[in-house]
Amino acid sequence: MGLIVQKFGGSSVADAARVRNVASIVADTYREGNNVIVVVSAQGDTTDDLIAKAKEINPKASRREMDMLMSAGEQISISLLAMAIEAMGLPVVSLLGWQAGFRTNSAYSVARIKKIDTERLEKELDDRQICIVAGFQGINKFDDITTFGRGGSDTSAVAIAASMHADRCQIFTDVEGVYTADPRKVSAAVKLEEITYDEMLELATLGAQVLNNRSVEMAKKYNVKLEVLSSLVRKPGTIVKEATKVEKMLISGVAKDTNVSKVSIVGVPDEPGFAFKIFSRLAAKNINIDIILQSVGRNNSKDIAFTVARENKEDAVAALEEFCTTVPGNTPTVSVEDVAKVSIVGAGMETHSGVASQMFEALYSAGINIKMISTSEIKISVLINESDADVAVSAIHRAFIG
Amino acid sequence: MGLIVQKFGGSSVADAARVRNVASIVADTYREGNNVIVVVSAQGDTTDDLIAKAKEINPKASRREMDMLMSAGEQISISLLAMAIEAMGLPVVSLLGWQAGFRTNSAYSVARIKKIDTERLEKELDDRQICIVAGFQGINKFDDITTFGRGGSDTSAVAIAASMHADRCQIFTDVEGVYTADPRKVSAAVKLEEITYDEMLELATLGAQVLNNRSVEMAKKYNVKLEVLSSLVRKPGTIVKEATKVEKMLISGVAKDTNVSKVSIVGVPDEPGFAFKIFSRLAAKNINIDIILQSVGRNNSKDIAFTVARENKEDAVAALEEFCTTVPGNTPTVSVEDVAKVSIVGAGMETHSGVASQMFEALYSAGINIKMISTSEIKISVLINESDADVAVSAIHRAFIG
Repeated sequence: MGLIVQKFGGSSVADAARVRNVASIVADTYREGNNVIVVVSAQGDTTDDLIAKAKEINPKASRREMDMLMSAGEQISISLLAMAIEAMGLPVVSLLGWQAGFRTNSAYSVARIKKIDTERLEKELDDRQICIVAGFQGINKFDDITTFGRGGSDTSAVAIAASMHADRCQIFTDVEGVYTADPRKVSAAVKLEEITYDEMLELATLGAQVLNNRSVEMAKKYNVKLEVLSSLVRKPGTIVKEATKVEKMLISGVAKDTNVSKVSIVGVPDEPGFAFKIFSRLAAKNINIDIILQSVGRNNSKDIAFTVARENKEDAVAALEEFCTTVPGNTPTVSVEDVAKVSIVGAGMETHSGVASQMFEALYSAGINIKMISTSEIKISVLINESDADVAVSAIHRAFIG
Repeated sequence: MGLIVQKFGGSSVADAARVRNVASIVADTYREGNNVIVVVSAQGDTTDDLIAKAKEINPKASRREMDMLMSAGEQISISLLAMAIEAMGLPVVSLLGWQAGFRTNSAYSVARIKKIDTERLEKELDDRQICIVAGFQGINKFDDITTFGRGGSDTSAVAIAASMHADRCQIFTDVEGVYTADPRKVSAAVKLEEITYDEMLELATLGAQVLNNRSVEMAKKYNVKLEVLSSLVRKPGTIVKEATKVEKMLISGVAKDTNVSKVSIVGVPDEPGFAFKIFSRLAAKNINIDIILQSVGRNNSKDIAFTVARENKEDAVAALEEFCTTVPGNTPTVSVEDVAKVSIVGAGMETHSGVASQMFEALYSAGINIKMISTSEIKISVLINESDADVAVSAIHRAFIG
């Protein structure tokens, strides 16, 4: 008998029929002899309704009260799912974040889990109860409700799996697993049987939003065996686990991210301290930087380019223009451009030379111009025109995978 | 500076405009220098939506899971009201039942409050925070959420007022106070400035549903000064308090209740034990009896009549017919009839003779036949035909009040 943690997102419990479908997956897992802890998000429409209600009353509501409001969403979904399982005649108990022992820091709406007091969960499992736990929520040291921010239910599931030493943490989604590329765009895309945590992390940051990054990081840290699978089709998904246990694929996936703007500043004096000044200004505005490139320009000056999410580009440009007014002598110039980032990820490329050149050749053959290149041990990213993105993904996929 | 507890029902917070209206009442009370604890029910439509969702998934859901589901309703209303108060620039914190310290027994959906741990509330008031508390809910010794059943938010408010020694507990409704009769039916009906707990209790049981009975009983027990007033019109309501502090009115109100059936059993042997046998059978079926009358009939037999709520009449008749089969000799006969109960209530009638005869004269003048009479120290009830009920209330009101 094992312990399986299963996580279902908001769309998986959106209506009564879907709640019943989830109940039958849980029931099957339980009837196979496993202990089961289920983590559920709020029903999709509930979240939207609650946000609309709040906005109507106070668009600048405090985060504490927003957390109080939003966490009612999972309270509804866990009790409904428990009722559906009761209707199947199985023993079940729903638990709110605080009842399941989630203790967090006090960063309302982006709270971090500090620990899980597993006593209650252990007691319920000892009684062979199926536990339905509200994802996305916990309480802080003041006994106030906190929520975890985006993808928080994934994090809840992995944290429980880690704390309870679960045999597996299954993340149910509307796709059948992790693919080598978006299967809606690339017909040759292949579902991966296994993938390493690091590859999964790179894919997530690259715009293939199957799993929340924080949850993958946590799974890696505590060595939780993850499985990404579909709640609609009953078949094995993709296992995410330690690198040593996975045969390294040369390329495990091709991803694109179109929420990218490239910001450039040309003509920065080539003296120490200017890069620091630029990026500290950006940090002060909470702008996350992705790729950074610095190159030597003319006349003892240098050029710096970096990428940001598109919603941050105005802020980034404003920060840079402010910076420019402080530069003695010739004023640098700032420009910004929306681009796409296309990347290949694969733990195997560490030991294979020629991957980069093969990728650039594929792009060249497809007539696509590369604006910027960035590499890590297991990833190569290029910035290109957004209009070229889908063609680029297909060309690269064909070159490496098929 | 005083401490005021204010309770608002589901219709008072039904939409954003009403939530803002409640926020302004609370804000005014706070700005006058008072500490304020507000108890709120779920928004009316939320409760209906949640029940519908549950029914669709499992019409026989456990009470534990129903309590988990339903208590999300107040979680939504307290956070929305807190947001509305935040928008007015005042310090406010919303608290769930368990955060406000409500500890209950484990009778899910009809839980009784065991105690309130007031530590958190006291701390928040010390910081001059307005506290918005979820009514209708608490937790039991397992840390599971419980709800209080019908009128539960009134009980929450009175319990807090009692535990915190509040100066006043204001129950906001859609009427302006307690009237001598239903103002929609009797144009001469007068709003009472004051009324005793006992009169309020009698009026409530008599069908004038302004305040939940349990909450009035609790207010009486702990001597909580209640005020019933309107959330829509800013004027003083009716104060409910101890008899000694109220100038005794001869008649404080005329009430009618049409949810009454009169059940009669004729020809019961006039021997000890038969009344016990009858009423123990009814008690075993959880049938609440209101008025009981016993009279001596013919041939060493007696007749017993009593009233029950109409939804219980079939069960009552069935119980009696079962009983009849056990009676040796002549079998008694059972009959049932829907009636109306019209009552006058007044702490002053204890010391005034002639109230009953004045009431009966008013009914006689209106040509209304009395089927049964029942009296207590502060109440006289008559059973009459339902079709006569409104005329009877007007006639009695005219005779005593105007």
